[in-house]
Amino acid sequence: MDFGSENTSPVHPAFAEALASANHGYATNFEAEAWTGRALRALRDFFETDELWAFTVSTGTAANAIALGAMVPSYGSILCHWDAHIVTDECGAPEMFSAGARQVPLPGEHGRMSIDALSAHLREARVGVVHAVQPSALSLTNLTEAGTSYRPEEIAELTGIARKAGLGTHLDGARFANAVAFLNATPAQLSWKAGVDIVTLGTTKSGSFGAETIVAFTAKYNTGLAFLRKRGGHFAPKSRFLGAQIEAYVKGDLWLHNARHANRAALRMATGLARIDGVALVHPTEGNEVFASMPASMCDALVGAGCKFQRDWRLHPRHHRFVTSWATSDEDVDRMLDICRSASGSDQLIASASDQPLT
Amino acid sequence: MDFGSENTSPVHPAFAEALASANHGYATNFEAEAWTGRALRALRDFFETDELWAFTVSTGTAANAIALGAMVPSYGSILCHWDAHIVTDECGAPEMFSAGARQVPLPGEHGRMSIDALSAHLREARVGVVHAVQPSALSLTNLTEAGTSYRPEEIAELTGIARKAGLGTHLDGARFANAVAFLNATPAQLSWKAGVDIVTLGTTKSGSFGAETIVAFTAKYNTGLAFLRKRGGHFAPKSRFLGAQIEAYVKGDLWLHNARHANRAALRMATGLARIDGVALVHPTEGNEVFASMPASMCDALVGAGCKFQRDWRLHPRHHRFVTSWATSDEDVDRMLDICRSASGSDQLIASASDQPLT
Amino acid sequence: MDFGSENTSPVHPAFAEALASANHGYATNFEAEAWTGRALRALRDFFETDELWAFTVSTGTAANAIALGAMVPSYGSILCHWDAHIVTDECGAPEMFSAGARQVPLPGEHGRMSIDALSAHLREARVGVVHAVQPSALSLTNLTEAGTSYRPEEIAELTGIARKAGLGTHLDGARFANAVAFLNATPAQLSWKAGVDIVTLGTTKSGSFGAETIVAFTAKYNTGLAFLRKRGGHFAPKSRFLGAQIEAYVKGDLWLHNARHANRAALRMATGLARIDGVALVHPTEGNEVFASMPASMCDALVGAGCKFQRDWRLHPRHHRFVTSWATSDEDVDRMLDICRSASGSDQLIASASDQPLT
Amino acid sequence: MDFGSENTSPVHPAFAEALASANHGYATNFEAEAWTGRALRALRDFFETDELWAFTVSTGTAANAIALGAMVPSYGSILCHWDAHIVTDECGAPEMFSAGARQVPLPGEHGRMSIDALSAHLREARVGVVHAVQPSALSLTNLTEAGTSYRPEEIAELTGIARKAGLGTHLDGARFANAVAFLNATPAQLSWKAGVDIVTLGTTKSGSFGAETIVAFTAKYNTGLAFLRKRGGHFAPKSRFLGAQIEAYVKGDLWLHNARHANRAALRMATGLARIDGVALVHPTEGNEVFASMPASMCDALVGAGCKFQRDWRLHPRHHRFVTSWATSDEDVDRMLDICRSASGSDQLIASASDQPLT
Repeated sequence: MDFGSENTSPVHPAFAEALASANHGYATNFEAEAWTGRALRALRDFFETDELWAFTVSTGTAANAIALGAMVPSYGSILCHWDAHIVTDECGAPEMFSAGARQVPLPGEHGRMSIDALSAHLREARVGVVHAVQPSALSLTNLTEAGTSYRPEEIAELTGIARKAGLGTHLDGARFANAVAFLNATPAQLSWKAGVDIVTLGTTKSGSFGAETIVAFTAKYNTGLAFLRKRGGHFAPKSRFLGAQIEAYVKGDLWLHNARHANRAALRMATGLARIDGVALVHPTEGNEVFASMPASMCDALVGAGCKFQRDWRLHPRHHRFVTSWATSDEDVDRMLDICRSASGSDQLIASASDQPLT
Repeated sequence: MDFGSENTSPVHPAFAEALASANHGYATNFEAEAWTGRALRALRDFFETDELWAFTVSTGTAANAIALGAMVPSYGSILCHWDAHIVTDECGAPEMFSAGARQVPLPGEHGRMSIDALSAHLREARVGVVHAVQPSALSLTNLTEAGTSYRPEEIAELTGIARKAGLGTHLDGARFANAVAFLNATPAQLSWKAGVDIVTLGTTKSGSFGAETIVAFTAKYNTGLAFLRKRGGHFAPKSRFLGAQIEAYVKGDLWLHNARHANRAALRMATGLARIDGVALVHPTEGNEVFASMPASMCDALVGAGCKFQRDWRLHPRHHRFVTSWATSDEDVDRMLDICRSASGSDQLIASASDQPLT
Repeated sequence: MDFGSENTSPVHPAFAEALASANHGYATNFEAEAWTGRALRALRDFFETDELWAFTVSTGTAANAIALGAMVPSYGSILCHWDAHIVTDECGAPEMFSAGARQVPLPGEHGRMSIDALSAHLREARVGVVHAVQPSALSLTNLTEAGTSYRPEEIAELTGIARKAGLGTHLDGARFANAVAFLNATPAQLSWKAGVDIVTLGTTKSGSFGAETIVAFTAKYNTGLAFLRKRGGHFAPKSRFLGAQIEAYVKGDLWLHNARHANRAALRMATGLARIDGVALVHPTEGNEVFASMPASMCDALVGAGCKFQRDWRLHPRHHRFVTSWATSDEDVDRMLDICRSASGSDQLIASASDQPLT
Repeated sequence: MDFGSENTSPVHPAFAEALASANHGYATNFEAEAWTGRALRALRDFFETDELWAFTVSTGTAANAIALGAMVPSYGSILCHWDAHIVTDECGAPEMFSAGARQVPLPGEHGRMSIDALSAHLREARVGVVHAVQPSALSLTNLTEAGTSYRPEEIAELTGIARKAGLGTHLDGARFANAVAFLNATPAQLSWKAGVDIVTLGTTKSGSFGAETIVAFTAKYNTGLAFLRKRGGHFAPKSRFLGAQIEAYVKGDLWLHNARHANRAALRMATGLARIDGVALVHPTEGNEVFASMPASMCDALVGAGCKFQRDWRLHPRHHRFVTSWATSDEDVDRMLDICRSASGSDQLIASASDQPLT
């Protein structure tokens, strides 16, 4: 029972096979080989456009930071949801790659940036005034950090406001496939058709060894992307092994298969938890993450049974994060639910001070 | 016949096996798993010291840049050989990770930094004067970029001068194993026993998928190393796959086996080339690289036969680089030598203007 | 009637005299002259301590950015009030000088940082976790940006919390003299005795040509301060003219005289405004700034009469900033009040939609 | 007898008067006042073009760093003479303002960059290859650091090569007036007419309190210049005092008068020194600097008499720098020459080991 992160799962066999089959003979280093080229073509099919350029890297933090670094001047700012991974969990990588731009966290329910908050910030941002940092990029996340999915029209509305104000638009797609699968949408609908300039498309959380792609739907950032990637130490000499994984992911339906599996597991968990006394779902489950508040004693019971999850993920109210992946089994979900159900019964008798929300 | 770089070779089966055997079950992400811990213990055995801390990353440029970034303030300078990879081929990554420190290229024969040049630079560097950047790190490379091996006492003399002046000491060990193997030395002799604070130990050029380690023999840079690694986007979520490769490399004699094989192939090539009219070895062959000048027509013949190598690697005189790896076969070396020999015969009749050195 | 900023005032004659009297004969450049030395001694008297080092620069933005840059690593964060000048009006200078550290704006009434907000942020900041930027400096402002004065014990409480968490402590003292004068305190009480490591002491807003001092009460940041100042282009060749102004400011009672004059003018204005219908003071007047909401028609009347002030300084509620200086005359204040009074009378009849608060 | 730097001289009375006359009444801060506007118009007359934008700052290091920072991406390089002030004496300020670009020092006789060296560097620079930093700016200095003057056609040839390769062109004009005066040229001939994009025009060394101007002959860098200036802490609140000095300098013939005076004094010194046994001029005297080698005992005699100069300015051969300014008197020059003459006589008898060149 490991719901701590998709990244604790084993690698999906398809990626292992992709690596093995790429490991034959010599191949020119630094992308002058066949695999990266094939990955590019597969990405153009996947996103249904030839106006697409791709830069592979090995981590999602790198992908986001390089994308934003190419988009934003040092005196610029990056507008993101206050709960975005780039601002909470990347140790200031976007600041580093942009030479010190500022991240501006904006509010919004259930991980979605508030349209009013975005508009208000841009209205008050003193554009053109040298004393103020200049809004330069909008960064959205889909699946959001609250496990919800932006609809195409929601993305389009936010990017529309941003583009009108001259901002570049970035989408952190670490869990892009989960959103596409949940919405029954196409990758194109959730990216360039909705006004996104750059998607950082993850495969790592979907089961690869670690392969992410900066997918640009405009050529204007290419020089910056190429040089920042190298300068940041992210240009892989043995690029074929990144290319092979990415091709494997987007060429067939591996991405969709893995995303649907994970989403179904999360839904099974969420549905189960919703029926347990003392448990409350904090966000709608629209992908492969479940956010729930529960009594501390229930958490203790889970921990005691060896269940891994992100305890005290966020406060207000205090809640916990459970993530599913391509590898999550129904058995593990059911076992976890059983533990919660058992803990729920005993709980009502021994609620303790430690169950109070932190302030 | 691919002598362009070790990185064009296929991955050695031992690394593929390491990956496969690590891919079972769940493992906590971000190094809180067993593989990274085992790699650390293996590194301590390999370097014969417990005063060792390790930070795994996926590229050599990242390893060097993070190490130097942790060692050097923004107003500092990094003293390296004028031919060092960090100054010629990393697109300013050390500048990026140090927030703008300066690289100072120093001369030296056959890839070895001149002791006089180092001493003279330090003597004239205006230490403590705010108008001047402050020498903060010495960076050596072993195997050098000229394919030669620094002896332990040569390293010790250079690091001694540097340490006396308060500098940190870094060794780019992308081909560390090749130097160790050539010299019949121990890893300890060529690193901390010779006054090196941090080695960036490569396995990529030795046959892995891409796994490098920042090996620190002092704890004083650890905070910087840990945070810069994350901030640079180089902290791998699925860290077990880096740990597994590194353990596989240093635990047994894989490192030595691969290095010896590559060194032998280079020696075979160098010995053969030395006997061919019109070919001159530019540097002694003390590892897995051969640097040779030859007539342009001979280069053309190699290219025509599909042989890959770094043509016009450096000028003064114009010469070319041939690299061998764990995968290089005697057949390929001999075939390459045959082509050169044939070209040598015809050459003497049709030497052309294009054979003149560039100016 | 110019209440836009202290910096629109003419320079006080004492500074002009200081410049003139320093302009005789030759003087070694870059602080190896007598004036800077005398300024240092005068500052030690002013702050009643010999544990003090000083670095003069020409702007307040430079002083703050160099101080914070010396205190904070690139992966660090700076905790400040959400209304602090460093975060609202310096175009990311602290980010630049710290190589991309993050500013974290915290709330608090009337320009004072909330102790609870500071404590809560530090409690949740994940200290030691590489995924998160690390709180590294507390930056307070006194006089605050709301024109209020932190009491010594308020500063001590905030710096105490910060120091316990290992943070450095910075005080933006662009209007330090106004706070000292208002509180009838000593400079020492409002700085090192209250736990402040570095004060950036302004004279520009107090009437000089442009001379600010980074005053450090610990030697531990001196290397960073000295090199960052030079590297940032802020080490003045003709340093005697900065030293002369700073000596003139702190040696006698020029600082106190100018601050008291400006504070009295602000109090006169605030007292007058408070009695006018439709005007509300937004913050207590504890220095030389008055913040007031008033009908738009009253603002229009002021603008029409040529009165300079910061209209729509902040929203929630919409209000305006009026600043007084050493040069402000009672006549100008009274004239401004007369205009407001007149506008108030007519106002009650023609209040319009444009007077509503922005949302 | 102070020949250490122009900056040890007192400020010329015309600048003191400019400051005094600007110090009347209120003036909007941050350049929204009359003086900066008048300075701009005066600069357009001075350079004979309306295609000119100006950004005033208080130090030459700031002017250079902001100009280069606006011109060069982080992965770019700046080509300059190996003796340029930006690379020897600004503590890496260009690196800081460009977020870590690299300075590439090129050789050349008497402070002038070798055309061959520039061409060769550009030919070998691997333009477009992500592994290499990309040449992005040419930076020249006139008066050079060797006290010589580039002719307009020499500048044009260098900038022509640079522009053809896509580089921006910068001229460090800390002693621009001295070159213009020596060559009997016009400011336009030595700047935009010779292919220079940005001149950093100094007045500080010409006798002001400290006022430098970034003069751009193209609008394309304006956004970067404006934001970097503010972000670097170099946007002066009381801008009128910078504007007033710059207007005073370029409007009439103050710049020419001061430059001619200083140049004449240097020529007097050089002519005198050339006739003294044991003294050798190291560079032609084409401005207000004299570089001479002389016996150590002669240096000692000068030092003993209280004469200030830059001893051991450069080695190969060891020589010394003497700078004249608007304030240098014939008496001081003659007194200095007398001391050298006296020392020369005694010298021939007691030449000592300490006179040997450093190695």
